[in-house]
Amino acid sequence: DTIFNPADHSHRRRNPLTGQWVLVSPHRARRPWQGQQEATPGDERLPRYDPQCYLCAGNTRVSGDVNPNYRGTFVFTNDHAALLPQVPPAPQGDDPIFQQHAAQGTSRVICFSRDHSATLPELPLDALRRVIDTWCEQTTELGRTHAWVQVFENKGAVMGCSQPHPHGQVWATSHLPNEADTENSHQRDYFAAHGRPMLLDVAQREADGERVVVQTEHWLAVVPFWATWPFETLLLPRFAVQRLPQLDAAQRDDLAVALKELTARYDNLFQCSFPYSMGWHGAPFDPAQPDAEADAAWQLHAHFYPPLLRSATVRKFMVGYEMLAEAQRDLTPEQAAERLRALKPVHYLAEGA
Amino acid sequence: DTIFNPADHSHRRRNPLTGQWVLVSPHRARRPWQGQQEATPGDERLPRYDPQCYLCAGNTRVSGDVNPNYRGTFVFTNDHAALLPQVPPAPQGDDPIFQQHAAQGTSRVICFSRDHSATLPELPLDALRRVIDTWCEQTTELGRTHAWVQVFENKGAVMGCSQPHPHGQVWATSHLPNEADTENSHQRDYFAAHGRPMLLDVAQREADGERVVVQTEHWLAVVPFWATWPFETLLLPRFAVQRLPQLDAAQRDDLAVALKELTARYDNLFQCSFPYSMGWHGAPFDPAQPDAEADAAWQLHAHFYPPLLRSATVRKFMVGYEMLAEAQRDLTPEQAAERLRALKPVHYLAEGA
Ligand SMILES: O=P(O)(O)O[C@H]1O[C@H](CO)[C@@H](O)[C@H](O)[C@H]1O
Ligand SMILES: O=P(O)(O)O[C@H]1O[C@H](CO)[C@@H](O)[C@H](O)[C@H]1O
Repeated sequence: DTIFNPADHSHRRRNPLTGQWVLVSPHRARRPWQGQQEATPGDERLPRYDPQCYLCAGNTRVSGDVNPNYRGTFVFTNDHAALLPQVPPAPQGDDPIFQQHAAQGTSRVICFSRDHSATLPELPLDALRRVIDTWCEQTTELGRTHAWVQVFENKGAVMGCSQPHPHGQVWATSHLPNEADTENSHQRDYFAAHGRPMLLDVAQREADGERVVVQTEHWLAVVPFWATWPFETLLLPRFAVQRLPQLDAAQRDDLAVALKELTARYDNLFQCSFPYSMGWHGAPFDPAQPDAEADAAWQLHAHFYPPLLRSATVRKFMVGYEMLAEAQRDLTPEQAAERLRALKPVHYLAEGA
Repeated sequence: DTIFNPADHSHRRRNPLTGQWVLVSPHRARRPWQGQQEATPGDERLPRYDPQCYLCAGNTRVSGDVNPNYRGTFVFTNDHAALLPQVPPAPQGDDPIFQQHAAQGTSRVICFSRDHSATLPELPLDALRRVIDTWCEQTTELGRTHAWVQVFENKGAVMGCSQPHPHGQVWATSHLPNEADTENSHQRDYFAAHGRPMLLDVAQREADGERVVVQTEHWLAVVPFWATWPFETLLLPRFAVQRLPQLDAAQRDDLAVALKELTARYDNLFQCSFPYSMGWHGAPFDPAQPDAEADAAWQLHAHFYPPLLRSATVRKFMVGYEMLAEAQRDLTPEQAAERLRALKPVHYLAEGA
């Protein structure tokens, strides 16, 4: 053991999007687990319509509002929004310890389809394409008056999702949230130093490589070199693009293919409805002063953060050391990618799979 | 609603230790919860000795090692350590995308006492004092050869704790982990600008105030102005001190009192064994080149990050928006402190409580 082997020896890797490091301890994967078991849904199928569901077409929500008899996607403002359009300004001060400001924005819910039972990998490609179009439309609309539009999905009870009807969310704010601000600085610094968008370089260098999970004509999903969650992936365009709405028809069609395959591989890994949080990051909007030069550093991308580690019931906990010191992982990103790549690209519950 | 009220209006607060912001949405506390329920232990008492437990005195561990018949605390090297003392150096390079280095260190387990049933607030003060002494001794010993010594405890199955026998851990590394590095920069910048340690200013300004939870002669526990977890606290010395081992006997005795009261209030909140991750941050060690000036910016402190939000079974999920954009909380830090302060300071299961 005198020659460094990343599959054997503890090491740290740096995330160039955030500047944060992750501790990789590959030998830890062998430790026995006697802790908490998760209740991840397996093969029991939900009904296509549930009269008790707040998100099904035609049903009444907690607020008393009645959902329309929608086809395709359905978007409404969250009945318990974390962000509201009108907030009086907070008193300004220059106290170095107690700093605050009012937060203005909105939170919406996006029902993916009227089918209560169909998660993303179970939707037909044309329905997935409608989800993508909805993400793009919401981003355009909210980007007119907000600096940041965060499209995301919490999937599975273990990820705090409290409504089984497949849905995502979009939260928009007039400020840049922490992660947006951090990725913004790191992409700009890279562009200033190297003259190319960082994530376009990443996509080129990762193509056909050992961390690839899905590769289509226009898209690439990799377990990034710096992944913290066991089966985390980064979904990258293989062409320069800053924001969701800029995607053309062919790129959207192909994105539906890539998304379906990536989420099917996830479900196939432990033969369960694989929980995750996912979301899109694109160049910030500055409605007052669009800045093409700053945009050039940015590359659109999606992060998938799934918690499962060993099985449908055993997750990775990002707790004590992770909260107080830094994220730690138990298998290498290359090992995770290899496992995801070895699975069938078609969902295990699909007809003929 | 034209005057800003932090208990009504969404706003952001800045953590001066990390530079990160948190989104506070106080009106969200009213939303109904239909999601996952946690199984937090209630009043069922564990036995004082469990023949199946890997941590009880005299028992045999997975590794085959036999625990001594210890009194007080018992420390051993983790049988599945994330960090090991010997790691060959990783090849160096200046690739801006793929950066890594070998990670050297050690991981130990600290059994708090031989009593399988006694969590921190249930230990007598002299036993708690022995835990504090052990934290100090471990920090001294490991600080001789490591830049960072992370003392922490994961409590409760929901926090990934897989052994019910009350215990903490200590992980030491020759590098500064992310959080240490971030707090280091922010404390140094504050000291350069204001000539005093930031957290000593915080302790002075918070004393007797609306965010106080526990106040003793030498210690102060507050829900920090910038708390992300619902009932997060920051435990601060009311005197200048950089590292655990510098605490004198009176300060340690008083710390046992403060810790017992803080953790008793936590258990009293929902009448359950309150889960959390907690840990200590103190000035880094530089065995080669001690730097008294850099040390002056630092102030020793402990963070408590507990996940529960509404009851013993309903937690806060830091998921989609939080992972992709920024942390969000549903009640104000002042409201959380008020609730913790209103409880009895004595544990609800204690004799005569
Ligand atoms: O206590 P254990 O079994 O070593 O492990 C626990 O704490 C570690 C340090 O916070 C985490 O990395 C693990 O995910 C968690 O399960
Ligand atoms: O989907 P909900 O019910 O709005 O809420 C869920 O997602 C939010 C955004 O990530 C989190 O803040 C909540 O903790 C989580 O339970």
